[in-house]
Amino acid sequence: MPAAQHTKRVLILNGPNLNMLGVRQPEVYGRDTLDTIKAACTTFATQRGWTLDFRQSNAEADLVTWIQQAREGADAVIINPAAYTHTSVAILDALLLLETPVIEVHLSNIHKREDFRHHSFVSRAATGLIVGFGAKGYLMALSALDDATD
Amino acid sequence: MPAAQHTKRVLILNGPNLNMLGVRQPEVYGRDTLDTIKAACTTFATQRGWTLDFRQSNAEADLVTWIQQAREGADAVIINPAAYTHTSVAILDALLLLETPVIEVHLSNIHKREDFRHHSFVSRAATGLIVGFGAKGYLMALSALDDATD
Amino acid sequence: MPAAQHTKRVLILNGPNLNMLGVRQPEVYGRDTLDTIKAACTTFATQRGWTLDFRQSNAEADLVTWIQQAREGADAVIINPAAYTHTSVAILDALLLLETPVIEVHLSNIHKREDFRHHSFVSRAATGLIVGFGAKGYLMALSALDDATD
Amino acid sequence: MPAAQHTKRVLILNGPNLNMLGVRQPEVYGRDTLDTIKAACTTFATQRGWTLDFRQSNAEADLVTWIQQAREGADAVIINPAAYTHTSVAILDALLLLETPVIEVHLSNIHKREDFRHHSFVSRAATGLIVGFGAKGYLMALSALDDATD
Amino acid sequence: MPAAQHTKRVLILNGPNLNMLGVRQPEVYGRDTLDTIKAACTTFATQRGWTLDFRQSNAEADLVTWIQQAREGADAVIINPAAYTHTSVAILDALLLLETPVIEVHLSNIHKREDFRHHSFVSRAATGLIVGFGAKGYLMALSALDDATD
Amino acid sequence: MPAAQHTKRVLILNGPNLNMLGVRQPEVYGRDTLDTIKAACTTFATQRGWTLDFRQSNAEADLVTWIQQAREGADAVIINPAAYTHTSVAILDALLLLETPVIEVHLSNIHKREDFRHHSFVSRAATGLIVGFGAKGYLMALSALDDATD
Amino acid sequence: MPAAQHTKRVLILNGPNLNMLGVRQPEVYGRDTLDTIKAACTTFATQRGWTLDFRQSNAEADLVTWIQQAREGADAVIINPAAYTHTSVAILDALLLLETPVIEVHLSNIHKREDFRHHSFVSRAATGLIVGFGAKGYLMALSALDDATD
Amino acid sequence: MPAAQHTKRVLILNGPNLNMLGVRQPEVYGRDTLDTIKAACTTFATQRGWTLDFRQSNAEADLVTWIQQAREGADAVIINPAAYTHTSVAILDALLLLETPVIEVHLSNIHKREDFRHHSFVSRAATGLIVGFGAKGYLMALSALDDATD
Amino acid sequence: MPAAQHTKRVLILNGPNLNMLGVRQPEVYGRDTLDTIKAACTTFATQRGWTLDFRQSNAEADLVTWIQQAREGADAVIINPAAYTHTSVAILDALLLLETPVIEVHLSNIHKREDFRHHSFVSRAATGLIVGFGAKGYLMALSALDDATD
Amino acid sequence: MPAAQHTKRVLILNGPNLNMLGVRQPEVYGRDTLDTIKAACTTFATQRGWTLDFRQSNAEADLVTWIQQAREGADAVIINPAAYTHTSVAILDALLLLETPVIEVHLSNIHKREDFRHHSFVSRAATGLIVGFGAKGYLMALSALDDATD
Amino acid sequence: MPAAQHTKRVLILNGPNLNMLGVRQPEVYGRDTLDTIKAACTTFATQRGWTLDFRQSNAEADLVTWIQQAREGADAVIINPAAYTHTSVAILDALLLLETPVIEVHLSNIHKREDFRHHSFVSRAATGLIVGFGAKGYLMALSALDDATD
Amino acid sequence: MPAAQHTKRVLILNGPNLNMLGVRQPEVYGRDTLDTIKAACTTFATQRGWTLDFRQSNAEADLVTWIQQAREGADAVIINPAAYTHTSVAILDALLLLETPVIEVHLSNIHKREDFRHHSFVSRAATGLIVGFGAKGYLMALSALDDATD
Repeated sequence: MPAAQHTKRVLILNGPNLNMLGVRQPEVYGRDTLDTIKAACTTFATQRGWTLDFRQSNAEADLVTWIQQAREGADAVIINPAAYTHTSVAILDALLLLETPVIEVHLSNIHKREDFRHHSFVSRAATGLIVGFGAKGYLMALSALDDATD
Repeated sequence: MPAAQHTKRVLILNGPNLNMLGVRQPEVYGRDTLDTIKAACTTFATQRGWTLDFRQSNAEADLVTWIQQAREGADAVIINPAAYTHTSVAILDALLLLETPVIEVHLSNIHKREDFRHHSFVSRAATGLIVGFGAKGYLMALSALDDATD
Repeated sequence: MPAAQHTKRVLILNGPNLNMLGVRQPEVYGRDTLDTIKAACTTFATQRGWTLDFRQSNAEADLVTWIQQAREGADAVIINPAAYTHTSVAILDALLLLETPVIEVHLSNIHKREDFRHHSFVSRAATGLIVGFGAKGYLMALSALDDATD
Repeated sequence: MPAAQHTKRVLILNGPNLNMLGVRQPEVYGRDTLDTIKAACTTFATQRGWTLDFRQSNAEADLVTWIQQAREGADAVIINPAAYTHTSVAILDALLLLETPVIEVHLSNIHKREDFRHHSFVSRAATGLIVGFGAKGYLMALSALDDATD
Repeated sequence: MPAAQHTKRVLILNGPNLNMLGVRQPEVYGRDTLDTIKAACTTFATQRGWTLDFRQSNAEADLVTWIQQAREGADAVIINPAAYTHTSVAILDALLLLETPVIEVHLSNIHKREDFRHHSFVSRAATGLIVGFGAKGYLMALSALDDATD
Repeated sequence: MPAAQHTKRVLILNGPNLNMLGVRQPEVYGRDTLDTIKAACTTFATQRGWTLDFRQSNAEADLVTWIQQAREGADAVIINPAAYTHTSVAILDALLLLETPVIEVHLSNIHKREDFRHHSFVSRAATGLIVGFGAKGYLMALSALDDATD
Repeated sequence: MPAAQHTKRVLILNGPNLNMLGVRQPEVYGRDTLDTIKAACTTFATQRGWTLDFRQSNAEADLVTWIQQAREGADAVIINPAAYTHTSVAILDALLLLETPVIEVHLSNIHKREDFRHHSFVSRAATGLIVGFGAKGYLMALSALDDATD
Repeated sequence: MPAAQHTKRVLILNGPNLNMLGVRQPEVYGRDTLDTIKAACTTFATQRGWTLDFRQSNAEADLVTWIQQAREGADAVIINPAAYTHTSVAILDALLLLETPVIEVHLSNIHKREDFRHHSFVSRAATGLIVGFGAKGYLMALSALDDATD
Repeated sequence: MPAAQHTKRVLILNGPNLNMLGVRQPEVYGRDTLDTIKAACTTFATQRGWTLDFRQSNAEADLVTWIQQAREGADAVIINPAAYTHTSVAILDALLLLETPVIEVHLSNIHKREDFRHHSFVSRAATGLIVGFGAKGYLMALSALDDATD
Repeated sequence: MPAAQHTKRVLILNGPNLNMLGVRQPEVYGRDTLDTIKAACTTFATQRGWTLDFRQSNAEADLVTWIQQAREGADAVIINPAAYTHTSVAILDALLLLETPVIEVHLSNIHKREDFRHHSFVSRAATGLIVGFGAKGYLMALSALDDATD
Repeated sequence: MPAAQHTKRVLILNGPNLNMLGVRQPEVYGRDTLDTIKAACTTFATQRGWTLDFRQSNAEADLVTWIQQAREGADAVIINPAAYTHTSVAILDALLLLETPVIEVHLSNIHKREDFRHHSFVSRAATGLIVGFGAKGYLMALSALDDATD
Repeated sequence: MPAAQHTKRVLILNGPNLNMLGVRQPEVYGRDTLDTIKAACTTFATQRGWTLDFRQSNAEADLVTWIQQAREGADAVIINPAAYTHTSVAILDALLLLETPVIEVHLSNIHKREDFRHHSFVSRAATGLIVGFGAKGYLMALSALDDATD
């Protein structure tokens, strides 16, 4: 893990359809929008003097490329892979390139949903998982990183 | 469903390799090209005073984004997800965002082909399926929408 | 396909429990009765000068026998095999005897229901499938035949 | 459930090969014949002033049709589907039409027999199951109905 | 089976969480408490001059030990193994020690619930099963024993 | 096996769609019709002074009932269950009632065809199987019986 | 959720072998002992004026019983079911009795370990999961409750 | 098939442990020894003026090599692959080299035995199968060849 | 392994229902009781100057706890987990805590019994297995330890 | 295959994360970078007067589109689909459009890695596979093409 | 079992690659060679006045043939089938011919290795198994025979 | 790997039925015979001053023994295991004894053939695979060795 003297840089990645958050199935995902979540994460990061890079894409390749860039440009990655959780070996392989902590976040408890949502390729490369806490899960992930580097 | 006074807007989405239609395995997919199909659909729509938006992409993310935009911009979606039928949870999740009718179209009878083509993630979000009628399936889908809103 | 000069003869077959349509689970199957559907199909056929033979049976053997007779007596078969969709190899084998078009119709989207309803033996012998459009699916099937013989 | 003032009408249905009871594998099914069982059930019903309709058929379609008729003609159904337990979606679908209690009876403990006898389509539509008590299971089912309507 | 001259001794065993009956998911299990059921069973037994031993434990080992003791101390066992139905080979092995009748009771129709509740280890050692009749299932089991020894 | 002094009675049963033999997929089933086969079997039986009862039905229940009657009326059963081979527990159960030899015949080598045709319920009750010899398989079955009773 | 005016009572349950923490496979579970974890949790709770009840048992039945008592005695449950995660339907059923939040914690990332550790019965009853953060996961769970009731 | 003017040459191959026939599990395989079977086959062949080559080996490679030689040296192959039925792709591949008829014989009805005996690699290369007729199966196979070449 | 100068301490653990040994299915488990086995083991241990601790419990938790204690209190563990062989991850996890030899003993050859008895969680933590030798298996396990420390 | 007189045009496609080669898990993939491999392939092609087009993308759609273009623009395709090997039906479908040779290359022996890496959709459209030879595999593929067109 | 007055004859069979013992993966199989094991077994047998026949072959057929000969020539068989454990039905069938005790020995604990090594065809014919004790397992097997015949 | 100063010795092994190459299914395996391939390989080896040992056997045991001998006698092994690819753990175990490179060659693309040909035991011990290049695959394997040792 990088020495504490430089500013901690955290990359938060969001997978497909998370740009629609708040619109879609609020009984499953809650009413927070991705902007609300980004704002809360930014506040959290600012309080600690961290750099936060918060991104969303519907494209598997964007997520892969951003993860690759994190090798040089981030001290930790938080990822909510959304639908790609269950189908993307490419994201898994990109995460396996990293030596930083990787935290997998899911808004809903995927184990209570359809069977095909129970399996995650990403978990094979994750340090830890935070599942089912809604938007708060992002802050829990940031807190976990906070503790990790103190 | 939107009130009848505004012009009905239909979005027709085509997945990967459908831009090669007519070239590839005509014994499976027929000899129509995607341009031929688009022309026939346009004629159908014009006769009814509908707006037709007919698109193709090889990219899963394009399809996801276009579906998201259909929440505001379309009254119905017809989708031939081609190869992504069998692998894309992201497209499924995008379709689950919609409240408009969604019709899944396949040119060939996928149940007569390889086993991995028998399963469709997309069907879980479809209103109806039209399978195995070749290019005519698109017009059948448009007709179904026609009836639906009269 | 038979030459156009003779009257087109269409056989529409309905499997078990479809005689109870309108009574059973209207939220799944709609409120149309089989008589309503028969009337609509008859109107459609009459307008085109076709002969329509519309039947229902709870017995797998009736369906098998009627399909066998269609070798001589029909130019196209539309079949909603209902429960036998999932269990009848006998109906599949009978359909494999035919050289006419065979269209499989399901009122509800069987892919959204219990797992055992996702598999169809009949699809292996079908020209095309129309799934999830309720009673309208029968007319869509007739229309498809209409186009097919012009 | 129908009001108590009219005579309770119970339909008891027996599936294929149960007409051979007493002949076949007595170590599995016991030595009672179906006539013996019918007589015992009739006595039970008569004592309570109920109407009993006791039928057997080797034909899946007969069972389906009789179940359909029970929508109007019976206040409860007791069914021993025998071999159709494991293969008939049509009987399941017919039972799903009913709003009366449905009791599934098996003479032998099917869970001690071959694997393919462990699964029952019918159980998905049953109120309750009575398994392994031999001919007595029919009377237990009648008793259960007795209690249910008092 | 023991001779009729001594008092019939029935052991009724209840597995984990059945002590919470009436509290938990009444739409699944009904509103009866275990005390209510015990009272009804006691009344039934008293009327016949039987000894009734009615027990509940959350511990698999208690159930195993009580079943072992039934070799000497009971003429019949009625067991609702609750969650251990699906996971306990130890209870199965204990039941296989018995020569008395064993009746497996389930309050709800486990075949309508999650897949993991469809399989029962206990059924391999049961004489008969009574499933889905709620609290009444205990009395049906007692009645079955009643008949059995008359 | 019955004593030799009475005339040997052989029942030959044919399942669904075999009435169409010669019409359907001759490359799979050959060009013999069922009448041709019946004639050849009759000749064979007549030469030996046997009674031959040769039947076909598309109905599972007919086959079940005829098998039941064979308990009294036949000294051996030859059955080509066709599609019911793979789906009928009822026919299996009926055959289990018999004490006479049961020979299962298939015209084509079902092990070279679709996967769902590889499994036979009927084989569990068969004395022997003759598979893939076309129409000749029936005569081979008769010959086997010939040897069996000499 | 209970009103804020009474002291929040949190029950933390630990399953089998967690009493050996720090001894066993430190490369998997870390070097913290359960006493260290309890102390950290107690500090956290004391700072917020909460009541903390921290327990461990090797017995499935103890965990079941303690969860049952939490219906009355706790406002939230944090559970690390350890080995029972994968085998206990009884613990699942007990958790389904609760209306309070339930947080499932695992020290190690169970998705990186043997296949049989990937499945959790408990997740079906959990509000959220915190997996792979070692001893810190307990504090993250407490924090999540903290937020939840503010 | 070779012209009739040369002497028909039949190769009969027997797999592992068939040299012990008559010794092993007579209730499964009958009491005939392989010598008895060879004698009966020789008599049959001699009567028709055929050449018979009757071999047994415990070695998969012997069977493979003998089958290869049959390309030149035999007009038909009858094979009882015994245990290699279920495990030998090498024998299957050798049989696929042949253009002569191949008849697979099994003494017992393998479908009534352990599950691993239900699958045959050899059937994929067989013209026909004769199963469950004991030693007589060899003569039935010879008869089938008799008819085939007349 | 501990140095030879102190007395070797061996812990022998017996799982559920082994207290009934001699009573239950003697054709499977033999006629020895657990006391007989204990006596034989004690004689063996005494002859070598070892300490023997021989225990049985029906409770999974007892076995878990005793195994944990063996970390300090035993130089080797012999365990017959009986029914818990197949269901207990908790016992597996406890055994994984040990650094001493662990020998798994089964009285009967579990591979000849029901399928669910073929899988053992415990084997993943065992040094060696002795299966199918009845009561003698315990002495074989002790002998193996004898050799191990000489 | 195109006539030899025009310059042979080879398209080499590299899937996701191969741009990171040399960085990621060198013990699995070796220390060569993609630039090194490109240089070696270019040298090889230049020596033969071939045109080489060497590309990499993290995007499934780029690979699909480039393959489509190869219908007109390339005489052979070499593809290392990386993670998309296991998940992309779209790439498979694009490759099925080609009539040129397609060689699938994998740097590591995917059969020694996780189970989900054992299956390749791409192999269904490949002429040949070269697996486990590291960077050299690309040159082996070029050599294979060399031979193919001489 | 043969009477004690004649010399006990034990056949010890070793499967493929065991001739390389000591060379291959000593961390899995130990450093003993097969000659060392043979010597130890010979010493053991000589002390008891037994005849020992110790063989190894890489050929499945040799093992089959030697087992067949043991019907006459041995009073007990000890077999380490090595790789054939998992693939040979032929060895299983040969062992089923024997009436003498058969002990299956494995040097390593096959349950800790790859999945395909967990299943043994041979166990279905074994009296007992000794697994994971290295070379000592052979002596344990001999000891077990020793006890068995005293 | 052996030092370069001695002559490189390569062992090429061919499994069952490859001696029939050119005869069997030329559309699958091509028209080269094994002698042609041997000649081409010999030419290749001679040009480099290597020793080539080229063998074929139908016997699994021969292949096992030759691989064992390669420990001392070869610097590299090229193996086309043919049918034993899919069934031989013994060959896998022998290959695991080697420290030299092992190249697995298949003439046809086994992934386009029957399902049972998709799995290879041998791949677990192979350095690399060359699949689908026909006879040329052997020379590609030799070239790969060439590069490997220069």
